[in-house]
Amino acid sequence: PIYGITPTYARLAQKADLTRLSQTLSLVKNFHWIVIEDSETKTKLVENLLKESSLKYTHLNVKTHKAKHSTASGVEQRNAALEWLRGYLETAEDKKGVVYFMDDDNTYSLKVFEEMRKINKVGVWPVGIVGGMRVEMPLVTNGKVTGFNAVWKPFRPFPIDMAGFAINATLFLDHPDAKFSRKVQSGFQESEILKYFTTKEEMEPLADNCTKVYVWHTRTQKPSILNVKKLKHTPVPDDHIEV
Amino acid sequence: PIYGITPTYARLAQKADLTRLSQTLSLVKNFHWIVIEDSETKTKLVENLLKESSLKYTHLNVKTHKAKHSTASGVEQRNAALEWLRGYLETAEDKKGVVYFMDDDNTYSLKVFEEMRKINKVGVWPVGIVGGMRVEMPLVTNGKVTGFNAVWKPFRPFPIDMAGFAINATLFLDHPDAKFSRKVQSGFQESEILKYFTTKEEMEPLADNCTKVYVWHTRTQKPSILNVKKLKHTPVPDDHIEV
Ligand SMILES: O=c1ccn([C@@H]2O[C@H](COP(=O)(O)OP(=O)(O)O)[C@@H](O)[C@H]2O)c(=O)[nH]1
Ligand SMILES: O=c1ccn([C@@H]2O[C@H](COP(=O)(O)OP(=O)(O)O)[C@@H](O)[C@H]2O)c(=O)[nH]1
Ligand SMILES: [Mn+2]
Ligand SMILES: [Mn+2]
Repeated sequence: PIYGITPTYARLAQKADLTRLSQTLSLVKNFHWIVIEDSETKTKLVENLLKESSLKYTHLNVKTHKAKHSTASGVEQRNAALEWLRGYLETAEDKKGVVYFMDDDNTYSLKVFEEMRKINKVGVWPVGIVGGMRVEMPLVTNGKVTGFNAVWKPFRPFPIDMAGFAINATLFLDHPDAKFSRKVQSGFQESEILKYFTTKEEMEPLADNCTKVYVWHTRTQKPSILNVKKLKHTPVPDDHIEV
Repeated sequence: PIYGITPTYARLAQKADLTRLSQTLSLVKNFHWIVIEDSETKTKLVENLLKESSLKYTHLNVKTHKAKHSTASGVEQRNAALEWLRGYLETAEDKKGVVYFMDDDNTYSLKVFEEMRKINKVGVWPVGIVGGMRVEMPLVTNGKVTGFNAVWKPFRPFPIDMAGFAINATLFLDHPDAKFSRKVQSGFQESEILKYFTTKEEMEPLADNCTKVYVWHTRTQKPSILNVKKLKHTPVPDDHIEV
Protein backbone atom coordinates (compact mmCIF):
# COMPACT_ATOMS: atom_id res chain seq x y z
CA PRO A 1 0.00 0.00 0.00
CA ILE A 2 0.80 3.67 -0.12
CA TYR A 3 1.11 4.99 3.43
CA GLY A 4 0.22 8.70 3.38
CA ILE A 5 1.46 10.46 6.53
CA THR A 6 -0.43 13.69 7.28
CA PRO A 7 0.08 15.94 10.31
CA THR A 8 -2.87 18.25 10.94
CA TYR A 9 -3.81 20.99 13.40
CA ALA A 10 -6.97 22.80 14.46
CA ARG A 11 -7.80 25.95 12.47
CA LEU A 12 -10.81 27.35 10.68
CA ALA A 13 -10.09 25.75 7.30
CA GLN A 14 -9.00 22.39 8.74
CA LYS A 15 -12.20 20.50 7.95
CA ALA A 16 -12.37 21.99 4.47
CA ASP A 17 -8.78 21.00 3.71
CA LEU A 18 -9.14 17.50 5.15
CA THR A 19 -12.46 17.01 3.36
CA ARG A 20 -11.15 17.74 -0.11
CA LEU A 21 -7.98 15.76 0.53
CA SER A 22 -9.93 12.75 1.84
CA GLN A 23 -12.16 12.84 -1.24
CA THR A 24 -9.11 12.73 -3.49
CA LEU A 25 -7.62 9.89 -1.45
CA SER A 26 -10.81 7.85 -1.78
CA LEU A 27 -9.87 7.54 -5.46
CA VAL A 28 -6.45 6.04 -4.71
CA LYS A 29 -6.32 2.25 -4.65
CA ASN A 30 -4.59 0.44 -1.82
CA PHE A 31 -4.04 3.58 0.24
CA HIS A 32 -3.61 3.79 4.01
CA TRP A 33 -3.90 7.26 5.56
CA ILE A 34 -1.99 7.94 8.77
CA VAL A 35 -3.35 11.16 10.21
CA ILE A 36 -1.61 12.64 13.24
CA GLU A 37 -3.30 15.48 15.07
CA ASP A 38 -1.08 18.15 16.60
CA SER A 39 -3.08 18.13 19.83
CA GLU A 40 -3.15 16.77 23.37
CA THR A 41 -6.16 14.62 22.56
CA LYS A 42 -7.88 13.39 19.42
CA THR A 43 -10.71 15.64 18.26
CA LYS A 44 -14.24 14.59 17.33
CA LEU A 45 -13.92 16.62 14.13
CA VAL A 46 -11.04 14.58 12.75
CA GLU A 47 -12.36 11.32 14.20
CA ASN A 48 -15.73 11.69 12.49
CA LEU A 49 -14.21 12.86 9.24
CA LEU A 50 -12.00 9.78 9.09
CA LYS A 51 -14.87 7.45 10.05
CA GLU A 52 -17.10 8.85 7.35
CA SER A 53 -14.37 8.84 4.70
CA SER A 54 -14.48 5.05 4.06
CA LEU A 55 -10.70 5.24 3.80
CA LYS A 56 -8.35 2.80 5.48
CA TYR A 57 -6.77 4.97 8.16
CA THR A 58 -4.85 5.20 11.42
CA HIS A 59 -5.59 8.11 13.74
CA LEU A 60 -2.81 9.31 16.06
CA ASN A 61 -2.09 12.46 18.03
CA VAL A 62 0.90 14.17 19.58
CA LYS A 63 1.19 17.80 20.60
CA THR A 64 4.11 19.84 19.29
CA HIS A 65 6.24 21.68 21.81
CA LYS A 66 8.21 23.92 19.51
CA ALA A 67 11.74 24.79 20.45
CA LYS A 68 12.91 28.38 19.91
CA HIS A 69 15.56 27.26 17.46
CA SER A 70 13.20 25.03 15.48
CA THR A 71 9.79 26.11 14.30
CA ALA A 72 9.31 23.35 11.72
CA SER A 73 5.79 21.91 11.58
CA GLY A 74 4.96 18.24 11.72
CA VAL A 75 8.24 16.87 13.13
CA GLU A 76 6.82 15.05 16.15
CA GLN A 77 3.71 14.03 14.20
CA ARG A 78 5.61 12.44 11.33
CA ASN A 79 7.94 10.68 13.77
CA ALA A 80 4.96 9.29 15.68
CA ALA A 81 3.60 7.96 12.39
CA LEU A 82 6.93 6.33 11.52
CA GLU A 83 7.07 4.68 14.92
CA TRP A 84 3.54 3.35 14.47
CA LEU A 85 4.39 2.17 10.95
CA ARG A 86 7.46 0.23 12.09
CA GLY A 87 5.42 -1.58 14.74
CA TYR A 88 2.72 -2.32 12.19
CA LEU A 89 5.06 -3.58 9.46
CA GLU A 90 7.02 -5.80 11.83
CA THR A 91 4.03 -8.06 12.29
CA ALA A 92 2.42 -7.44 8.91
CA GLU A 93 2.42 -10.23 6.36
CA ASP A 94 2.82 -7.78 3.51
CA LYS A 95 5.72 -5.49 4.35
CA LYS A 96 5.74 -3.88 0.89
CA GLY A 97 4.61 -0.33 0.43
CA VAL A 98 5.60 3.27 -0.08
CA VAL A 99 5.73 6.10 2.47
CA TYR A 100 4.62 9.56 1.35
CA PHE A 101 4.61 12.65 3.60
CA MET A 102 1.47 14.62 2.70
CA ASP A 103 0.58 18.04 4.09
CA ASP A 104 -3.13 18.56 4.58
CA ASP A 105 -3.41 21.66 2.38
CA ASN A 106 -1.35 20.55 -0.62
CA THR A 107 -2.94 19.56 -3.92
CA TYR A 108 -2.35 16.02 -5.17
CA SER A 109 -3.16 14.83 -8.67
CA LEU A 110 -4.10 11.16 -8.75
CA LYS A 111 -1.15 10.75 -11.11
CA VAL A 112 1.42 11.26 -8.36
CA PHE A 113 0.17 8.10 -6.62
CA GLU A 114 0.56 6.07 -9.78
CA GLU A 115 4.13 7.30 -10.12
CA MET A 116 5.16 6.29 -6.62
CA ARG A 117 4.07 2.69 -7.14
CA LYS A 118 7.16 2.35 -9.39
CA ILE A 119 9.57 3.14 -6.57
CA ASN A 120 12.41 0.80 -5.71
CA LYS A 121 14.05 2.80 -2.93
CA VAL A 122 13.42 6.55 -3.18
CA GLY A 123 11.48 8.25 -5.98
CA VAL A 124 11.52 11.99 -6.72
CA TRP A 125 9.47 14.39 -8.87
CA PRO A 126 8.75 18.12 -9.30
CA VAL A 127 6.59 20.12 -6.88
CA GLY A 128 4.61 23.10 -8.14
CA ILE A 129 4.45 26.52 -6.43
CA VAL A 130 7.05 26.14 -3.72
CA GLY A 131 10.28 27.70 -2.53
CA GLY A 132 9.58 30.94 -4.38
CA MET A 133 9.41 29.13 -7.73
CA ARG A 134 6.74 28.02 -10.18
CA VAL A 135 8.26 24.59 -9.78
CA GLU A 136 11.11 23.09 -7.75
CA MET A 137 12.46 20.02 -9.52
CA PRO A 138 15.26 17.53 -9.77
CA LEU A 139 17.34 18.01 -12.92
CA VAL A 140 17.72 14.79 -14.89
CA THR A 141 20.34 13.78 -17.46
CA ASN A 142 20.24 10.36 -19.11
CA GLY A 143 17.73 9.13 -16.56
CA LYS A 144 19.84 10.18 -13.55
CA VAL A 145 19.33 13.03 -11.10
CA THR A 146 22.29 15.37 -11.63
CA GLY A 147 21.11 18.39 -9.66
CA PHE A 148 18.13 20.34 -8.41
CA ASN A 149 16.36 23.47 -9.59
CA ALA A 150 15.80 25.40 -6.36
CA VAL A 151 16.37 29.01 -5.37
CA TRP A 152 15.39 28.88 -1.68
CA LYS A 153 18.39 27.60 0.31
CA PRO A 154 19.91 25.84 -2.69
CA PHE A 155 22.68 24.67 -0.35
CA ARG A 156 20.26 22.20 1.26
CA PRO A 157 21.71 18.66 0.84
CA PHE A 158 18.44 17.74 -0.91
CA PRO A 159 16.67 20.95 -1.97
CA ILE A 160 13.31 19.18 -2.30
CA ASP A 161 9.93 19.73 -0.67
CA MET A 162 8.26 17.04 1.45
CA ALA A 163 5.74 16.51 -1.38
CA GLY A 164 8.47 15.73 -3.91
CA PHE A 165 9.57 12.25 -2.84
CA ALA A 166 8.38 8.92 -1.45
CA ILE A 167 10.30 6.09 0.18
CA ASN A 168 9.98 2.29 0.06
CA ALA A 169 8.27 1.41 3.36
CA THR A 170 10.43 -1.64 4.04
CA LEU A 171 13.49 0.61 4.26
CA PHE A 172 12.11 2.06 7.49
CA LEU A 173 12.57 -1.39 9.06
CA ASP A 174 16.14 -1.56 7.76
CA HIS A 175 16.86 1.91 9.24
CA PRO A 176 15.14 1.93 12.64
CA ASP A 177 16.87 5.21 13.51
CA ALA A 178 15.55 7.17 10.50
CA LYS A 179 13.43 10.11 11.64
CA PHE A 180 12.90 13.86 11.51
CA SER A 181 14.79 16.10 13.91
CA ARG A 182 14.44 19.38 15.80
CA LYS A 183 18.23 19.79 15.61
CA VAL A 184 18.35 20.92 11.98
CA GLN A 185 17.75 24.36 10.53
CA SER A 186 14.56 25.38 8.75
CA GLY A 187 14.11 23.68 5.38
CA PHE A 188 16.36 20.75 6.28
CA GLN A 189 13.70 18.23 7.37
CA GLU A 190 13.52 16.67 3.92
CA SER A 191 17.30 16.31 3.78
CA GLU A 192 17.32 14.91 7.30
CA ILE A 193 15.07 11.97 6.45
CA LEU A 194 16.41 11.40 2.93
CA LYS A 195 20.03 11.08 4.10
CA TYR A 196 19.22 7.70 5.69
CA PHE A 197 18.03 6.20 2.46
CA THR A 198 19.59 7.63 -0.64
CA THR A 199 22.15 9.75 -2.42
CA LYS A 200 21.46 12.13 -5.26
CA GLU A 201 22.85 9.55 -7.70
CA GLU A 202 20.57 6.78 -6.40
CA MET A 203 17.34 8.77 -6.59
CA GLU A 204 14.74 7.46 -9.02
CA PRO A 205 13.38 10.30 -11.16
CA LEU A 206 9.66 9.82 -11.84
CA ALA A 207 6.89 11.88 -13.52
CA ASP A 208 8.39 11.56 -16.99
CA ASN A 209 11.98 12.19 -15.90
CA CYS A 210 10.84 15.02 -13.61
CA THR A 211 9.21 17.05 -16.38
CA LYS A 212 5.61 16.82 -15.12
CA VAL A 213 3.96 18.53 -12.15
CA TYR A 214 1.58 16.20 -10.31
CA VAL A 215 1.63 17.87 -6.90
CA TRP A 216 1.39 21.50 -5.78
CA HIS A 217 2.37 23.11 -2.51
CA THR A 218 -0.84 25.12 -2.34
CA ARG A 219 -1.78 26.96 0.83
CA THR A 220 -5.27 27.81 1.97
CA GLN A 221 -5.60 31.51 2.73
CA LYS A 222 -6.12 32.26 6.42
CA PRO A 223 -9.73 33.52 6.72
CA SER A 224 -10.38 36.89 8.28
CA ILE A 225 -13.30 36.73 10.68
CA LEU A 226 -15.01 39.86 11.95
CA ASN A 227 -15.20 40.45 15.69
CA VAL A 228 -18.91 39.93 16.15
CA LYS A 229 -18.95 41.83 19.45
CA LYS A 230 -17.98 45.01 17.70
CA LEU A 231 -20.93 44.92 15.31
CA LYS A 232 -24.09 46.96 15.70
CA HIS A 233 -26.38 44.05 14.90
CA THR A 234 -24.91 40.92 16.41
CA PRO A 235 -25.79 37.72 14.55
CA VAL A 236 -27.31 34.59 16.06
CA PRO A 237 -24.53 32.56 17.79
CA ASP A 238 -23.14 29.81 15.57
CA ASP A 239 -20.73 28.06 17.93
CA HIS A 240 -22.84 24.90 17.85
CA ILE A 241 -22.25 24.55 14.11
CA GLU A 242 -19.14 22.56 13.15
CA VAL A 243 -17.33 24.31 10.28
CA PRO B 1 -28.16 15.97 -13.75
CA ILE B 2 -26.40 18.53 -11.62
CA TYR B 3 -25.03 21.29 -13.86
CA GLY B 4 -22.01 22.83 -12.12
CA ILE B 5 -21.13 26.22 -13.59
CA THR B 6 -17.50 27.24 -12.96
CA PRO B 7 -15.80 30.39 -14.25
CA THR B 8 -11.99 30.14 -14.22
CA TYR B 9 -9.04 32.35 -15.05
CA ALA B 10 -5.32 31.90 -15.66
CA ARG B 11 -3.11 32.15 -12.58
CA LEU B 12 -0.35 30.11 -11.00
CA ALA B 13 -2.63 27.94 -8.85
CA GLN B 14 -5.29 27.45 -11.54
CA LYS B 15 -4.30 23.92 -12.51
CA ALA B 16 -3.94 22.88 -8.87
CA ASP B 17 -7.38 24.24 -8.00
CA LEU B 18 -9.08 22.74 -11.05
CA THR B 19 -7.31 19.41 -10.51
CA ARG B 20 -8.56 18.91 -6.97
CA LEU B 21 -12.02 20.13 -7.86
CA SER B 22 -12.25 17.82 -10.89
CA GLN B 23 -11.17 14.88 -8.74
CA THR B 24 -13.97 15.63 -6.28
CA LEU B 25 -16.48 16.00 -9.12
CA SER B 26 -15.51 12.61 -10.56
CA LEU B 27 -17.16 11.16 -7.44
CA VAL B 28 -20.50 12.88 -8.12
CA LYS B 29 -23.01 10.83 -10.07
CA ASN B 30 -24.86 12.35 -12.98
CA PHE B 31 -22.83 15.55 -12.99
CA HIS B 32 -22.22 17.88 -15.95
CA TRP B 33 -19.44 20.46 -15.53
CA ILE B 34 -19.75 23.70 -17.46
CA VAL B 35 -16.35 25.41 -17.32
CA ILE B 36 -16.06 28.91 -18.73
CA GLU B 37 -12.61 30.40 -19.14
CA ASP B 38 -12.22 34.12 -18.59
CA SER B 39 -10.08 34.47 -21.73
CA GLU B 40 -10.17 35.44 -25.37
CA THR B 41 -9.50 31.87 -26.42
CA LYS B 42 -9.68 28.48 -24.79
CA THR B 43 -6.37 27.35 -23.27
CA LYS B 44 -4.66 24.00 -23.76
CA LEU B 45 -4.25 23.73 -19.98
CA VAL B 46 -7.98 23.72 -19.28
CA GLU B 47 -8.81 21.75 -22.42
CA ASN B 48 -6.42 18.92 -21.51
CA LEU B 49 -7.48 18.91 -17.89
CA LEU B 50 -11.13 18.50 -18.88
CA LYS B 51 -10.31 15.84 -21.46
CA GLU B 52 -8.32 13.80 -18.97
CA SER B 53 -10.90 14.18 -16.19
CA SER B 54 -13.36 11.64 -17.60
CA LEU B 55 -16.11 14.04 -16.51
CA LYS B 56 -19.06 15.00 -18.66
CA TYR B 57 -18.26 18.63 -19.47
CA THR B 58 -18.84 21.66 -21.66
CA HIS B 59 -15.94 24.02 -22.27
CA LEU B 60 -16.73 27.67 -23.01
CA ASN B 61 -14.83 30.95 -22.90
CA VAL B 62 -15.61 34.64 -22.70
CA LYS B 63 -13.27 37.41 -21.64
CA THR B 64 -14.38 39.81 -18.89
CA HIS B 65 -14.23 43.51 -19.60
CA LYS B 66 -14.71 44.89 -16.13
CA ALA B 67 -16.56 48.13 -15.74
CA LYS B 68 -15.25 50.67 -13.22
CA HIS B 69 -18.42 50.47 -11.18
CA SER B 70 -18.54 46.68 -11.19
CA THR B 71 -15.58 44.49 -10.35
CA ALA B 72 -17.53 41.29 -9.71
CA SER B 73 -15.91 38.14 -11.06
CA GLY B 74 -17.61 35.59 -13.25
CA VAL B 75 -20.63 37.61 -14.40
CA GLU B 76 -20.11 37.18 -18.15
CA GLN B 77 -18.90 33.62 -17.70
CA ARG B 78 -21.92 32.46 -15.71
CA ASN B 79 -24.25 34.21 -18.17
CA ALA B 80 -22.55 32.46 -21.08
CA ALA B 81 -23.09 29.16 -19.31
CA LEU B 82 -26.78 29.92 -18.72
CA GLU B 83 -27.21 30.81 -22.37
CA TRP B 84 -25.57 27.55 -23.39
CA LEU B 85 -27.69 25.62 -20.89
CA ARG B 86 -30.96 27.07 -22.20
CA GLY B 87 -30.08 26.07 -25.75
CA TYR B 88 -29.10 22.62 -24.56
CA LEU B 89 -32.20 22.02 -22.43
CA GLU B 90 -34.57 23.21 -25.15
CA THR B 91 -33.71 20.22 -27.31
CA ALA B 92 -32.84 17.82 -24.49
CA GLU B 93 -35.17 14.92 -23.79
CA ASP B 94 -34.48 15.13 -20.07
CA LYS B 95 -34.97 18.73 -18.98
CA LYS B 96 -34.67 17.91 -15.30
CA GLY B 97 -31.67 18.96 -13.31
CA VAL B 98 -30.17 21.41 -10.87
CA VAL B 99 -27.92 24.40 -11.55
CA TYR B 100 -25.11 25.10 -9.06
CA PHE B 101 -22.65 28.00 -9.36
CA MET B 102 -19.27 26.66 -8.27
CA ASP B 103 -16.12 28.75 -7.87
CA ASP B 104 -12.95 26.92 -8.79
CA ASP B 105 -11.20 27.38 -5.43
CA ASN B 106 -14.05 26.54 -3.06
CA THR B 107 -14.21 23.26 -1.15
CA TYR B 108 -17.18 20.99 -1.78
CA SER B 109 -18.06 18.00 0.36
CA LEU B 110 -19.77 15.27 -1.64
CA LYS B 111 -22.70 15.72 0.72
CA VAL B 112 -23.69 19.06 -0.77
CA PHE B 113 -24.44 17.35 -4.08
CA GLU B 114 -26.71 14.82 -2.40
CA GLU B 115 -28.61 17.66 -0.74
CA MET B 116 -29.28 19.52 -3.96
CA ARG B 117 -30.92 16.50 -5.59
CA LYS B 118 -33.87 17.13 -3.25
CA ILE B 119 -34.55 20.58 -4.70
CA ASN B 120 -37.97 21.51 -6.01
CA LYS B 121 -37.31 25.11 -6.99
CA VAL B 122 -34.48 26.73 -4.99
CA GLY B 123 -32.54 25.04 -2.19
CA VAL B 124 -30.30 26.81 0.33
CA TRP B 125 -27.72 25.76 2.95
CA PRO B 126 -24.88 27.22 5.05
CA VAL B 127 -21.49 28.20 3.59
CA GLY B 128 -18.39 28.00 5.74
CA ILE B 129 -15.70 30.69 6.04
CA VAL B 130 -17.28 33.54 4.12
CA GLY B 131 -18.42 37.12 4.61
CA GLY B 132 -16.21 37.58 7.67
CA MET B 133 -17.96 34.73 9.48
CA ARG B 134 -17.22 31.13 10.41
CA VAL B 135 -20.46 30.35 8.63
CA GLU B 136 -23.09 32.34 6.76
CA MET B 137 -26.42 30.57 6.97
CA PRO B 138 -30.16 30.81 6.49
CA LEU B 139 -32.05 30.83 9.80
CA VAL B 140 -34.81 28.23 9.87
CA THR B 141 -37.90 28.04 12.05
CA ASN B 142 -40.39 25.20 11.66
CA GLY B 143 -38.79 24.17 8.39
CA LYS B 144 -39.05 27.66 6.85
CA VAL B 145 -36.32 30.22 6.14
CA THR B 146 -37.11 33.18 8.40
CA GLY B 147 -33.88 35.14 8.06
CA PHE B 148 -30.17 34.98 7.39
CA ASN B 149 -27.11 35.03 9.59
CA ALA B 150 -24.78 37.41 7.76
CA VAL B 151 -22.69 40.35 8.90
CA TRP B 152 -21.24 41.51 5.57
CA LYS B 153 -23.85 43.71 3.87
CA PRO B 154 -26.77 42.17 5.80
CA PHE B 155 -29.05 44.47 3.79
CA ARG B 156 -28.54 42.34 0.69
CA PRO B 157 -31.95 41.04 -0.46
CA PHE B 158 -30.52 37.51 -0.13
CA PRO B 159 -27.37 37.67 2.00
CA ILE B 160 -26.11 34.33 0.71
CA ASP B 161 -22.92 33.31 -1.07
CA MET B 162 -22.99 31.76 -4.56
CA ALA B 163 -22.04 28.41 -3.01
CA GLY B 164 -25.09 28.43 -0.73
CA PHE B 165 -27.89 27.69 -3.17
CA ALA B 166 -28.88 25.74 -6.27
CA ILE B 167 -31.78 26.17 -8.68
CA ASN B 168 -34.01 23.76 -10.57
CA ALA B 169 -32.64 23.81 -14.13
CA THR B 170 -36.04 23.81 -15.82
CA LEU B 171 -36.80 27.18 -14.22
CA PHE B 172 -34.18 28.76 -16.47
CA LEU B 173 -36.41 27.89 -19.42
CA ASP B 174 -39.41 29.43 -17.68
CA HIS B 175 -37.41 32.61 -17.01
CA PRO B 176 -35.44 33.27 -20.18
CA ASP B 177 -34.38 36.69 -18.89
CA ALA B 178 -32.79 35.45 -15.65
CA LYS B 179 -29.12 36.34 -15.55
CA PHE B 180 -26.33 38.06 -13.63
CA SER B 181 -25.77 41.77 -14.11
CA ARG B 182 -23.02 44.39 -14.07
CA LYS B 183 -25.58 46.97 -12.93
CA VAL B 184 -25.71 45.85 -9.29
CA GLN B 185 -23.34 46.68 -6.45
CA SER B 186 -20.72 44.32 -5.10
CA GLY B 187 -22.20 41.34 -3.27
CA PHE B 188 -25.55 41.55 -5.03
CA GLN B 189 -24.99 38.96 -7.78
CA GLU B 190 -26.57 36.19 -5.73
CA SER B 191 -29.62 38.35 -5.00
CA GLU B 192 -29.77 39.35 -8.66
CA ILE B 193 -30.20 35.80 -9.91
CA LEU B 194 -32.29 34.55 -6.99
CA LYS B 195 -34.91 37.27 -7.38
CA TYR B 196 -36.16 35.65 -10.60
CA PHE B 197 -36.92 32.37 -8.91
CA THR B 198 -37.81 32.62 -5.27
CA THR B 199 -38.70 34.57 -2.17
CA LYS B 200 -37.24 34.03 1.27
CA GLU B 201 -40.44 32.21 2.27
CA GLU B 202 -40.27 29.85 -0.70
CA MET B 203 -36.65 28.80 -0.19
CA GLU B 204 -36.09 25.13 0.62
CA PRO B 205 -33.71 24.77 3.57
CA LEU B 206 -31.43 21.77 3.14
CA ALA B 207 -28.44 20.30 5.00
CA ASP B 208 -30.46 19.33 8.06
CA ASN B 209 -32.46 22.55 8.22
CA CYS B 210 -29.33 24.59 7.49
CA THR B 211 -27.38 23.30 10.49
CA LYS B 212 -24.61 21.49 8.59
CA VAL B 213 -21.69 22.93 6.63
CA TYR B 214 -21.04 21.00 3.42
CA VAL B 215 -19.28 23.72 1.42
CA TRP B 216 -16.54 26.19 2.31
CA HIS B 217 -15.54 29.43 0.60
CA THR B 218 -11.84 28.58 0.80
CA ARG B 219 -9.32 30.65 -1.09
CA THR B 220 -5.97 29.49 -2.34
CA GLN B 221 -3.19 31.79 -1.16
CA LYS B 222 -1.54 33.77 -3.94
CA PRO B 223 1.97 32.32 -4.32
CA SER B 224 4.95 34.64 -4.04
CA ILE B 225 7.47 33.88 -6.73
CA LEU B 226 11.03 35.23 -6.56
CA ASN B 227 12.31 37.34 -9.40
CA VAL B 228 14.80 34.91 -10.86
CA LYS B 229 16.74 37.63 -12.67
CA LYS B 230 17.73 39.20 -9.36
CA LEU B 231 19.33 36.01 -8.03
CA LYS B 232 23.07 35.35 -7.97
CA HIS B 233 22.71 31.80 -9.28
CA THR B 234 19.92 31.72 -11.82
CA PRO B 235 18.13 28.39 -12.08
CA VAL B 236 17.58 26.39 -15.25
CA PRO B 237 14.59 27.89 -17.15
CA ASP B 238 11.33 26.06 -16.41
CA ASP B 239 8.92 27.81 -18.77
CA HIS B 240 8.43 24.62 -20.77
CA ILE B 241 6.97 22.91 -17.67
CA GLU B 242 3.20 23.27 -17.24
CA VAL B 243 2.41 24.00 -13.58
O1 LIG C 1 1.39 23.90 14.17
C1 LIG C 1 1.25 23.16 13.19
C2 LIG C 1 1.35 23.65 11.86
C3 LIG C 1 1.20 22.75 10.81
N1 LIG C 1 0.93 21.44 11.01
C4 LIG C 1 0.74 20.52 9.87
O2 LIG C 1 2.01 20.34 9.25
C5 LIG C 1 1.87 20.30 7.83
C6 LIG C 1 2.69 21.44 7.21
O3 LIG C 1 2.18 22.67 7.72
P1 LIG C 1 1.73 23.90 6.76
O4 LIG C 1 0.89 23.38 5.66
O5 LIG C 1 1.17 24.99 7.60
O6 LIG C 1 3.17 24.30 6.20
P2 LIG C 1 3.59 25.09 4.89
O7 LIG C 1 2.39 25.24 4.00
O8 LIG C 1 4.09 26.39 5.40
O9 LIG C 1 4.66 24.23 4.27
C7 LIG C 1 0.39 20.43 7.51
O10 LIG C 1 -0.15 19.16 7.25
C8 LIG C 1 -0.19 21.05 8.78
O11 LIG C 1 -1.53 20.68 9.03
C9 LIG C 1 0.82 20.95 12.32
O12 LIG C 1 0.58 19.77 12.50
N2 LIG C 1 0.99 21.82 13.37
O1 LIG D 1 -10.86 37.76 -13.11
C1 LIG D 1 -11.44 36.74 -12.70
C2 LIG D 1 -11.48 36.41 -11.33
C3 LIG D 1 -12.15 35.25 -10.93
N1 LIG D 1 -12.75 34.44 -11.84
C4 LIG D 1 -13.44 33.22 -11.40
O2 LIG D 1 -14.62 33.61 -10.72
C5 LIG D 1 -14.84 32.78 -9.57
C6 LIG D 1 -14.84 33.64 -8.31
O3 LIG D 1 -13.57 34.29 -8.21
P1 LIG D 1 -12.66 34.20 -6.90
O4 LIG D 1 -12.60 32.79 -6.42
O5 LIG D 1 -11.36 34.88 -7.15
O6 LIG D 1 -13.56 35.07 -5.91
P2 LIG D 1 -13.64 35.12 -4.34
O7 LIG D 1 -12.83 33.98 -3.77
O8 LIG D 1 -13.04 36.45 -4.01
O9 LIG D 1 -15.09 35.01 -4.03
C7 LIG D 1 -13.72 31.74 -9.54
O10 LIG D 1 -14.19 30.53 -10.08
C8 LIG D 1 -12.64 32.37 -10.41
O11 LIG D 1 -11.84 31.43 -11.08
C9 LIG D 1 -12.73 34.76 -13.19
O12 LIG D 1 -13.26 34.03 -14.01
N2 LIG D 1 -12.07 35.91 -13.59
MN1 LIG E 1 0.93 23.71 3.61
MN1 LIG F 1 -12.84 31.96 -4.50
